Amino acid sequence: MQYFSGAGLSLDLREVNRAVEAAFADHGMGLVQMPPKVYITLPGGDFRTMPAYLPSAKIAGVKIVNVHPDNPKKGLPTVMALTVILDIATGRPLALLNATRLTDIRTGAAGAVAARYLSRKKTITLGVAGTGRQAGAQVRATAEELEIEQILIWSRTTRHAEKFRTDMKQYDCRVVSLEQACNADVIVTTTPSRSPIIRSEWVHAGTHINAIGADAPGKQELDPALLLRAQVFVDDMAQAVHSGEVNVPITNGSYSPEKIAGTLGEVVIGKKRRTDPDAITIFDSTGLAIQDLAIAAMVMREGSSIDLPFP
Amino acid sequence: MQYFSGAGLSLDLREVNRAVEAAFADHGMGLVQMPPKVYITLPGGDFRTMPAYLPSAKIAGVKIVNVHPDNPKKGLPTVMALTVILDIATGRPLALLNATRLTDIRTGAAGAVAARYLSRKKTITLGVAGTGRQAGAQVRATAEELEIEQILIWSRTTRHAEKFRTDMKQYDCRVVSLEQACNADVIVTTTPSRSPIIRSEWVHAGTHINAIGADAPGKQELDPALLLRAQVFVDDMAQAVHSGEVNVPITNGSYSPEKIAGTLGEVVIGKKRRTDPDAITIFDSTGLAIQDLAIAAMVMREGSSIDLPFP
Repeated sequence: MQYFSGAGLSLDLREVNRAVEAAFADHGMGLVQMPPKVYITLPGGDFRTMPAYLPSAKIAGVKIVNVHPDNPKKGLPTVMALTVILDIATGRPLALLNATRLTDIRTGAAGAVAARYLSRKKTITLGVAGTGRQAGAQVRATAEELEIEQILIWSRTTRHAEKFRTDMKQYDCRVVSLEQACNADVIVTTTPSRSPIIRSEWVHAGTHINAIGADAPGKQELDPALLLRAQVFVDDMAQAVHSGEVNVPITNGSYSPEKIAGTLGEVVIGKKRRTDPDAITIFDSTGLAIQDLAIAAMVMREGSSIDLPFP
Repeated sequence: MQYFSGAGLSLDLREVNRAVEAAFADHGMGLVQMPPKVYITLPGGDFRTMPAYLPSAKIAGVKIVNVHPDNPKKGLPTVMALTVILDIATGRPLALLNATRLTDIRTGAAGAVAARYLSRKKTITLGVAGTGRQAGAQVRATAEELEIEQILIWSRTTRHAEKFRTDMKQYDCRVVSLEQACNADVIVTTTPSRSPIIRSEWVHAGTHINAIGADAPGKQELDPALLLRAQVFVDDMAQAVHSGEVNVPITNGSYSPEKIAGTLGEVVIGKKRRTDPDAITIFDSTGLAIQDLAIAAMVMREGSSIDLPFP
């Protein structure tokens, strides 16, 4: 059994995007096993268990990932993750991966794949709402798919927005109001918001939005009126209804699962698409266990590891 | 993060029984979080993901366990397991445990706890149907709770029964027919059968049966007529209906969930009990994630480990 403690440091982001795209294609064709993630609530947060089997990559396993919002006060990341990979033929544990960074990267890759297929432009102004770790991952992954001309940055905390601008200094960056950040071709939302922050009237026709922040029941970032104007694609129907951007509006009756246009996997395989250049498209990302398997397969091919006795 | 590679070698079985009993008590009082285990099917077997939180022991985590029936031909155990323990306060991975042996031991402990509360005698003749690794675990754990006067051993393969007799030479053992093995105070079934092997008419009034083998949809060991004669206690209602001894009879309509007398946890806390000395009692064990957490807590207090970097 191999332990990959520093997994993700040397991955090629464009290759990750391709691997994650292939996993979404398998999902769109119904070729994966992936039950919805299971939540356990702890006193200061929660953890999610995400088992899956991705036959095309010959890989199966489980990611275990926590969300503890007060961790930064203790010097720890809010989100940490570990992935366990099993041998398909025997069920023997093959590998353990420190998946904290991998989780960031594979989530960025899902946004990049969505933007690749759903953005109507190849050269874009990117609006960024929220400037945490995941915002950076989204920018880096999307830059592998589209030409980013300018980044419009908004954070609730201006100091964080300025820090993000410094980190992204290779781009033309502006720190702006949230309304101004919506004046973009592609908008990425990565906040922990539990009420809508993006108002429908701020978003122009033809915009693509990657809604990344909402990944648990009760979380939402977008005005439900915006959902009603848009073609909404989810990563996985069951997970999105339970814990994605659409979960709150569905629960309170302002949106319904029947309105969902399809899955990103269906978009990747060409079964679903942006139907109108003036449509607003939204990708509602909850994070799929098959994304974790796809990136784990890359790490296991190329990363360095510690050998552990098992049994 | 600590890795316990040889977990279980030095555990005191009576202490394990008490820890597992306490976990069942918490379950009976509704004090645990434990969603039903999630199954993923692989070409040559399956694996199950079992997350839980056991507040009284301040422990949370996930066991991942496979079942690959052809593994022995490859020199590997049919069942292998790994448990990941997370820090409750921060969600940080604290420990990994090789849980192959621990799975045997904690399953044995559940049977022992059931026999302690449901066997009408303290000195028993023990009938053993199936002589694999789990049969041994059941005998060793039960011997900590009850006085075993004689063991009646049956296996489909006589050579395996003889081997089991040799392994258990400290007891008065007899290799017998399956019908004769049912002439016992407590019967333990640990076969991988997918059709009933224990006929109702073979089982006397007052017998207690630990039905351990059926732990996946389609598996069963007992005549449905025996279930209808008995007080059936399950470890967990949702898991038992899905994959326990009762799963096939419930699916084909010869038994119904309403007939289940209660859970072992309810028995441990005194809410449910054997109602008649002449009743046949059955404990339908599917294996609970809280059993894995209870035994993991013991290993983490006493076992030796390898320190792994995380992150």
